[in-house]
Amino acid sequence: MNQGKNIERLAVVGAVAAGMSAASQAKRRNPNLEVVVFDRGPHVSYGACGMPYNIQDSDRAIDDLVVISAERFRSERGIDMRTGHEVTEIDPEAGRLRFKRSQGEGEFAFDALVLATGCRAVTPNWPGKDLPGIFALHTLEQAASIKRYLQDRSLRRAVVVGGGHIGLEMADVLTSRGLAVTLIKRSSDLPSGYPEVISQLVQSELDRFGVKVMIGTEISGFEGAVRVEQVKTSAGPIPADVVILATGVKPEVDLAQQAGIRIGACGAIAVDETMATSAPGVYAAGDCAEAYHRLLKRGVFMPRGTTANKQGKIAGANVLGAGERFPGIMGTSITKIFSLEVGHTGLMEQEANALGLEAQAIHIKARTRAHGYPGAKEILVRLVFEPMGGRLLGAQMAGGEGVAKRIDVLVAALSAGWSVDELAGLDLSYAPPFAPVWDPILVAANIAKKKVR
Amino acid sequence: MNQGKNIERLAVVGAVAAGMSAASQAKRRNPNLEVVVFDRGPHVSYGACGMPYNIQDSDRAIDDLVVISAERFRSERGIDMRTGHEVTEIDPEAGRLRFKRSQGEGEFAFDALVLATGCRAVTPNWPGKDLPGIFALHTLEQAASIKRYLQDRSLRRAVVVGGGHIGLEMADVLTSRGLAVTLIKRSSDLPSGYPEVISQLVQSELDRFGVKVMIGTEISGFEGAVRVEQVKTSAGPIPADVVILATGVKPEVDLAQQAGIRIGACGAIAVDETMATSAPGVYAAGDCAEAYHRLLKRGVFMPRGTTANKQGKIAGANVLGAGERFPGIMGTSITKIFSLEVGHTGLMEQEANALGLEAQAIHIKARTRAHGYPGAKEILVRLVFEPMGGRLLGAQMAGGEGVAKRIDVLVAALSAGWSVDELAGLDLSYAPPFAPVWDPILVAANIAKKKVR
Repeated sequence: MNQGKNIERLAVVGAVAAGMSAASQAKRRNPNLEVVVFDRGPHVSYGACGMPYNIQDSDRAIDDLVVISAERFRSERGIDMRTGHEVTEIDPEAGRLRFKRSQGEGEFAFDALVLATGCRAVTPNWPGKDLPGIFALHTLEQAASIKRYLQDRSLRRAVVVGGGHIGLEMADVLTSRGLAVTLIKRSSDLPSGYPEVISQLVQSELDRFGVKVMIGTEISGFEGAVRVEQVKTSAGPIPADVVILATGVKPEVDLAQQAGIRIGACGAIAVDETMATSAPGVYAAGDCAEAYHRLLKRGVFMPRGTTANKQGKIAGANVLGAGERFPGIMGTSITKIFSLEVGHTGLMEQEANALGLEAQAIHIKARTRAHGYPGAKEILVRLVFEPMGGRLLGAQMAGGEGVAKRIDVLVAALSAGWSVDELAGLDLSYAPPFAPVWDPILVAANIAKKKVR
Repeated sequence: MNQGKNIERLAVVGAVAAGMSAASQAKRRNPNLEVVVFDRGPHVSYGACGMPYNIQDSDRAIDDLVVISAERFRSERGIDMRTGHEVTEIDPEAGRLRFKRSQGEGEFAFDALVLATGCRAVTPNWPGKDLPGIFALHTLEQAASIKRYLQDRSLRRAVVVGGGHIGLEMADVLTSRGLAVTLIKRSSDLPSGYPEVISQLVQSELDRFGVKVMIGTEISGFEGAVRVEQVKTSAGPIPADVVILATGVKPEVDLAQQAGIRIGACGAIAVDETMATSAPGVYAAGDCAEAYHRLLKRGVFMPRGTTANKQGKIAGANVLGAGERFPGIMGTSITKIFSLEVGHTGLMEQEANALGLEAQAIHIKARTRAHGYPGAKEILVRLVFEPMGGRLLGAQMAGGEGVAKRIDVLVAALSAGWSVDELAGLDLSYAPPFAPVWDPILVAANIAKKKVR
């Protein structure tokens, strides 16, 4: 494929966040461009992060998660949507891809290609893991299956395997749907990767809502006559009417790999800051692609809906030569576990140490509203910083309200490269309903300042 | 007074936010320091910004607003609290002040002095403004008087004069206490200084809760037999059982002025970044002092509880030679009007123009949570920026939730000196309960980017 030639036909593989952002952006910039999007599934442009919350609400249709339907992409945006088309091979050199669909196989010629193949759930090869009643939660079809299965009112006990965001959110969802939930996790960090002081708050919240947490328990398989009935573990069998496997994801890179496109050390498709892959004219965006981490200064595999949208938009623009650049991520994440909000941005100590940086952490507990203002919740703010000079490296928070946007203030502080001293000087907003006169961020920054050499 | 000499006695004038922060900080740094705080009133260390919310709740004692009592400052912090002492004269040169109290007058010798005299409510000299039932809301005593007055259940109609934060908060408070409220304001900006697109949302919110807003109506006085019964205006008499005058404040600088201490152009006591005044050994902090505005690059009078606390702490440290510096404010403010949150940081266009900067503004409306997630509210984000290069100059927001901390992200962006392009690249947190996949901040930044030349 010749990079210099006029781009008349863009192929996009994958029709969720990154793929549809790329397709829409390219079409908007050049309405004459032929944009064809291939997806093996029936659903496009759905909010995957919203799946647990949709499952929680038995009154909501699962299709509510679809932001824009394939029909609307066709009729309103003029994008050729090929759902039910599984792309089986790409040939960037020749500008051609092959696909498979129910009616047989086919080929398609393109001038430019965006790979937005996403990631897939990974589960250990436990015996019995294909029994009915055992689910991963990754695609809209899987979410729909779980939701259908939960309509069976005789289900009483659920086991969730994994304590990352999806595992914790599903423990919340299944509890609120009336099931007794056991969460099994290998290590005690909750969510995975978080420091102990926050894991303890999460553990307390799970306790408070009756979720039984089993740490370090090994799973050896699943058993049941016609559907799952129990989980075999190192702590004995655990009865289970439904099991959610939330044991991780990995990037879907087979197509890229087979085409000889470079894969990064993190396992995702290597991209530069324009989202270009090693193959001329081929871009990658979203969960299948590396996300450049601004502090680690390398590409990482860290799937996020918001990153997928940003990268997709940039890839779609750059197909047409816009030269846009993805500035990178800060490793930000946020989740809600029952009434506890938990968030993180930047580096944990061990990540900083791996970069050769000395890292220290402090944490404070404070209230989210002014003295005397009703409804205040507790919030824990933890700052990670370099003791020499005080440069901020990361932050974690947990609390009853106001965590997400406080994490975002820290995202900005990290992006600016500030010290804890500079953070402490911010003119943050103050009014009794929204913060104490010293916002918890400032309280934490003032404590950290004292530790700086 | 000799700056070089050993500091053994610190006098602080004013015992609210700035004064008590200074006193506490100095005492903490040197427990042997004698710290004496003078205040003409009976109350110390109260949350003035919380007064409207306390008045709203008839079950709460007004004293709840006191964060730390004078007794606790004495017993736990070893600070000599002289409440009911009005300082009538300071002599920085001689290191001496004079005070008046119920038992007579007195003198006090100090080695260093912190002025934290605050500001006072200003009301035009309308005939009848001293009638019972007419109140300013500035001190805890005034708040207590209002609250006592409102215990009279026969009160039905209230008039609020002024549409700044206090006027709007009191319109909310009086409405929720069952009174029919009329708000009179000279100009149509609500809160004062806000752009029209936000004033309209505030006006709608006031309408929705039954507050009658009269713009441009001139007041000529108040009438009543034994207490206020009506407000005389250019639109005819308005019946009123209670009137709140929220017509502005000005810094309390008489003591400083009489001592020859330099007053800034904004009318507040001139200070450098260490909070030092023009008189050696004399510091000023809080509402009586200038706050350095980081974008305007000059001292302004912008009374805020959070600024008072920060400045007081710095003044208290610097009395003992700590050399701490106040980095300045960004003009941030936030308030809640019924269920609408309204906030601002940085410059409005007219302020930018006055600095010789070209300024442009865009605004967007978005939802506060992800597609399909229940409970989302509308939010308006308005960005002010330089069309040439795109440097961010200011931001205003209004919405049903999540305004305060989003404003704080903008505070950080302004403090970092970013362009709207840099703002658009932030890795803000995303999960359905907290934001759409494109946070409203990012949506606004992306729109602004397109306007940049």
